[in-house]
Amino acid sequence: MRGKKIVLGTLLFAVGVSVSAQGSPASAALAAAAGVSAIADAAALESLAFSLDVIWLFIGAILVFIMQAGFALVETGLTRAKNATNITMKNMIDFCFGALAFWALGWGFMYGADFGGFIGTDQFFNGPMALLLDDANAGFYKSWLFQVVFAATAATIVSGAMAERTKFKSYLIYTVFISALIYPIQGHWIWSADGWLAKLGFHDFAGSTVVHSVGGWAALVGAVVLGPRIGKYVKGADGKISVKAFPGHNIPFVCLGCLLLFFGWFGFNGASTGTALGGGSIWSGAAISRVCVTTALAASAGAIAAMFTSWAWFKKPDCSMTLNGLLAGLVAITAPCAVVSPGAAIIIGFIGGILVVFSVEFIDKVLKIDDPVGATSVHLVNGIWGTLAVGIWANAPEDGVLGLLHGGGFTQLGHQAVGVLAVGAWTVATSLILFLAIKLSAGLRVSAKEELMGLDICEHKADAYSGFQIFSSV
Amino acid sequence: MRGKKIVLGTLLFAVGVSVSAQGSPASAALAAAAGVSAIADAAALESLAFSLDVIWLFIGAILVFIMQAGFALVETGLTRAKNATNITMKNMIDFCFGALAFWALGWGFMYGADFGGFIGTDQFFNGPMALLLDDANAGFYKSWLFQVVFAATAATIVSGAMAERTKFKSYLIYTVFISALIYPIQGHWIWSADGWLAKLGFHDFAGSTVVHSVGGWAALVGAVVLGPRIGKYVKGADGKISVKAFPGHNIPFVCLGCLLLFFGWFGFNGASTGTALGGGSIWSGAAISRVCVTTALAASAGAIAAMFTSWAWFKKPDCSMTLNGLLAGLVAITAPCAVVSPGAAIIIGFIGGILVVFSVEFIDKVLKIDDPVGATSVHLVNGIWGTLAVGIWANAPEDGVLGLLHGGGFTQLGHQAVGVLAVGAWTVATSLILFLAIKLSAGLRVSAKEELMGLDICEHKADAYSGFQIFSSV
Amino acid sequence: MRGKKIVLGTLLFAVGVSVSAQGSPASAALAAAAGVSAIADAAALESLAFSLDVIWLFIGAILVFIMQAGFALVETGLTRAKNATNITMKNMIDFCFGALAFWALGWGFMYGADFGGFIGTDQFFNGPMALLLDDANAGFYKSWLFQVVFAATAATIVSGAMAERTKFKSYLIYTVFISALIYPIQGHWIWSADGWLAKLGFHDFAGSTVVHSVGGWAALVGAVVLGPRIGKYVKGADGKISVKAFPGHNIPFVCLGCLLLFFGWFGFNGASTGTALGGGSIWSGAAISRVCVTTALAASAGAIAAMFTSWAWFKKPDCSMTLNGLLAGLVAITAPCAVVSPGAAIIIGFIGGILVVFSVEFIDKVLKIDDPVGATSVHLVNGIWGTLAVGIWANAPEDGVLGLLHGGGFTQLGHQAVGVLAVGAWTVATSLILFLAIKLSAGLRVSAKEELMGLDICEHKADAYSGFQIFSSV
Repeated sequence: MRGKKIVLGTLLFAVGVSVSAQGSPASAALAAAAGVSAIADAAALESLAFSLDVIWLFIGAILVFIMQAGFALVETGLTRAKNATNITMKNMIDFCFGALAFWALGWGFMYGADFGGFIGTDQFFNGPMALLLDDANAGFYKSWLFQVVFAATAATIVSGAMAERTKFKSYLIYTVFISALIYPIQGHWIWSADGWLAKLGFHDFAGSTVVHSVGGWAALVGAVVLGPRIGKYVKGADGKISVKAFPGHNIPFVCLGCLLLFFGWFGFNGASTGTALGGGSIWSGAAISRVCVTTALAASAGAIAAMFTSWAWFKKPDCSMTLNGLLAGLVAITAPCAVVSPGAAIIIGFIGGILVVFSVEFIDKVLKIDDPVGATSVHLVNGIWGTLAVGIWANAPEDGVLGLLHGGGFTQLGHQAVGVLAVGAWTVATSLILFLAIKLSAGLRVSAKEELMGLDICEHKADAYSGFQIFSSV
Repeated sequence: MRGKKIVLGTLLFAVGVSVSAQGSPASAALAAAAGVSAIADAAALESLAFSLDVIWLFIGAILVFIMQAGFALVETGLTRAKNATNITMKNMIDFCFGALAFWALGWGFMYGADFGGFIGTDQFFNGPMALLLDDANAGFYKSWLFQVVFAATAATIVSGAMAERTKFKSYLIYTVFISALIYPIQGHWIWSADGWLAKLGFHDFAGSTVVHSVGGWAALVGAVVLGPRIGKYVKGADGKISVKAFPGHNIPFVCLGCLLLFFGWFGFNGASTGTALGGGSIWSGAAISRVCVTTALAASAGAIAAMFTSWAWFKKPDCSMTLNGLLAGLVAITAPCAVVSPGAAIIIGFIGGILVVFSVEFIDKVLKIDDPVGATSVHLVNGIWGTLAVGIWANAPEDGVLGLLHGGGFTQLGHQAVGVLAVGAWTVATSLILFLAIKLSAGLRVSAKEELMGLDICEHKADAYSGFQIFSSV
Repeated sequence: MRGKKIVLGTLLFAVGVSVSAQGSPASAALAAAAGVSAIADAAALESLAFSLDVIWLFIGAILVFIMQAGFALVETGLTRAKNATNITMKNMIDFCFGALAFWALGWGFMYGADFGGFIGTDQFFNGPMALLLDDANAGFYKSWLFQVVFAATAATIVSGAMAERTKFKSYLIYTVFISALIYPIQGHWIWSADGWLAKLGFHDFAGSTVVHSVGGWAALVGAVVLGPRIGKYVKGADGKISVKAFPGHNIPFVCLGCLLLFFGWFGFNGASTGTALGGGSIWSGAAISRVCVTTALAASAGAIAAMFTSWAWFKKPDCSMTLNGLLAGLVAITAPCAVVSPGAAIIIGFIGGILVVFSVEFIDKVLKIDDPVGATSVHLVNGIWGTLAVGIWANAPEDGVLGLLHGGGFTQLGHQAVGVLAVGAWTVATSLILFLAIKLSAGLRVSAKEELMGLDICEHKADAYSGFQIFSSV
């Protein structure tokens, strides 16, 4: 196992194609015309390879970035109109706080010089002004944007489970802690070459555990600490608790959001190769196309499975369940996308889609935890499922990742379980402390009156849909 | 004519830059510093070229993918609020079914070993687990995502014409048949190197015929078999039929959708070169930039032409006509984008924009076929127009595509007409059988009561806009 | 200073990788297998470098293109529902007119053969049919799409300040003049290698001045010439003028729009290197990753600063102010993004975010100029601020751009001020003539009745949200 996402640039970038090849187009043309072959030098080739990698990480980064819009649309669409300003604003501003926090601290904790396999210890507040390759910041510059968008994804997942009742101020506080501390420290364990889980042999290609389960665990803890929305679970005269559904106010937003997430996920998974260059490993450009195939198939299978499951259960194909099934398939394939076959991807996604329906129902109806958008079921349950699936279907002997069905025995599955548990314990412990500390200080939840009026008016003095006639449920 | 979209990888990819150039950055740096030129080897260069192609196809594929969101927004925006959940859900799930169907069957029918120029015969259910270049699946892995998004586009076009009255279940059935059979078989004729139309000399660079006319023909057949929406054509006391317009419920969605389609179309047309590498042919990176110029200009001319046409006719610049004009220009330039000049592109788009307005009016008012979003006029009429335009303005002598105005006589125009007719006959015949079979078995249309209540409630038990006060026309 | 955005292709592109490397995979494989190194030739390498650049400009161009959707959503979301069709249609069609205008005239004025450092004089109506490298159009084809999207951005900025009261017809006229004349001529001064400001040493990497301040100045002039919306500034019985706010009708649209703008801005700034290739200069691939870091940090700091400023001032974190702060940070970092450190970027963005809040209030409450979306504060005020910031924090000695804090003294700051003033004078003068000429001929403003009814019905005979119950403020 090696740290996957940091590929340091080389000092040769500045030499470049411009010198050896582009600098003398006339002479090269002449040589070509004369049938004499001008010889390309290795430095020029290497410079070009570096450029290609820069562009590949750029593509990956902006694709993951636009997932912020996807999450914002899904979350606001699945909740009530009276909180739409609050929700979309949170999903935008959490990236902003996350970017500064991950620049100041997160990057260093995640990729700074290792201490005991547990935490990074330098490269904080990176970036004295210098050209890319003249200084020690080459790795930082090359990879920071691609890294920060993953951190922001982990943070933004939480907001869904805590929607419609969290204080805006408190939201800002916890999003900073997640981006600066909770996410990057466990990220160091797995995606830094020196991390203890990386050395153990734990495999999480693009973040079923690192990103999604972390967001999912924090979401679960947050939802429990917050408690349900007013009117969600009502005890009747007979002492029985009835569970009320608050239908989302804009399903086309949810669909558009899911398509943007799907779109961005190709970068999330695809660019997690860390490079576009050859080499044959799953951490090379050789894996990109296959990662896209498994990602698309798992997502599709997840949506279809959730649709049929909801159809059988509720007698109708439920739209939000189907969309959550799509996301479930995507979350589940995120860890194994580079090491499993298309057929396995379909199975993994299909199971993910079934899981998400049962999980949403179980958490809502049995556990009575109010997670308005199903974030826990999508990101936690399927984050775990996808991580374990590596231990079952992985078939990448050259990279040392072999699952149960491909002759690896229970070894890989064991490593995966250790990673799931370790990251779970870390995230539950730290986020519990965080949410309780906020609850006891700034307060985590708005007043009942504010919740009933809606956060848009109470927290931001602004309706989301001025002029529209809207009736609020509860 | 050669098959355009499959460029097989070479076995050298795994050797890679890492060995010859990246593997020894220190020595290379030393050499460079010493003024001694290390020599690059051809395998490293080839590996880099392969990587660039992988990235180019990735970019193209995700851009065409996001067109699914564009279609969803256009279609739901142009129809009524009571069907918005149904429509957006269909546009999302058809990709999912299409992906599985095209993986299982479609790819093989389209690009499997040729049988008689008519159909592919192997490569079904592709993808036993193996690294990209160690196995026979290299071509499949490299190109599948880019191919499946085209198949999904063809299928999703149909939903527009059949909106607001089709059974969800039946929609799922026909979308599978289109993605697995109807689309890929005719695609084999044109885009497989061995296809009979490819060998004839038919030219359709990015799919005016292969994608858009196929979607358009099936849309037309579907709309006819389904019949119009209730209240669309009402016979008055005087025996005259009055035609009612059902205005769309969200025009900003339509505009956003069109911009997403325009955005994605640069990948649709641009990446249809199949490669980013040099070579001078229209099937090479040399064509990319020019394809973007013709695409942007034709789309712009189409929108402007439709706007002025609607302005002259209806006395006001009509928004949905203008947007359909944009799409008409895009559809029309899709076949000829690589072989015509910017000036010709403007003329082709401009005529497309005029055509779409007259066609929408003709189909609605004269033929009285109810196509809620104008899919037939955009995709079928302009798919044909763009395909024929190749025969008029093509000017790519090196690639053997020369139109009437550039010394090619009527030869190319004849080939184009043959392709249009053959694909039309195939699609009308197969989709007619398909829709009639569904009509006689599962049923194609919801009940009148369900149609009046809206498909959202009846098919999915979920309003799209919970809480909003909405009045339904009819 | 050199012209930044035009990198001419070389004649070698067509020779290509296909000949030297790809053409003989078998022999190369053989050689590699035998341990014999086949040697790569320089022409093949150069061809590959050209391909990479084509793809990089493609990526940049489509990212800037999708900003049209971002602007459309922000503008329509911040205004009233009764004008949503008009606004989104304008934002779509202005690209179309701009594309034709910039193809016909703008490109030539901007990049044609220089006359006196002031204007380009040829390359109008470019593009007789020919393959890319066989003709004089190579530069045009390679860069046109990337250039036209910048022109369209400048034009579309104006519409925000003039929203909800401008005649559609008049909008079309002025958008053509901006794209064909006002924008490209000053663009020639700065981004053509021969432009007088380029030669002076004025530095505007991606267009704080060239694009945003031009749009902002024209927006300001347009808003003044038009006058405020009815009911915006009402004189009370006591002679005092009360300022009314018209809340936007769809805040999620605004958030989605801002995220799309942020997404696109990575291309706007990143691809303004003009190339992905090495070389060490800020006009090379070496700058791409760092540009992304400064862009993300400045935007984030801008949003956070505006949020806290609005929080302190209005007692609540205001959503539209926060979003305008994000855009302010982006506009401000656009000029200096390649020459400042991450730390400086945060300061520049933070100040931009504070500026935008005070500017919006000042323009609205003190100057009483009605700019419905704050376009002037975002694009003009911060366009100027970002341009001047180059003179303070620039630290790119190799490229000759050094600000006050890095030993450059007041020289660079002086150059920046000259550029700001020159472009301001040019744009104010030309746009004032333009708007007055339209006002006196076709008329600039709709009638009071039309304004009150809404432009959707009066200008386009189409409600944006058919079926929804909407109450209009004023």
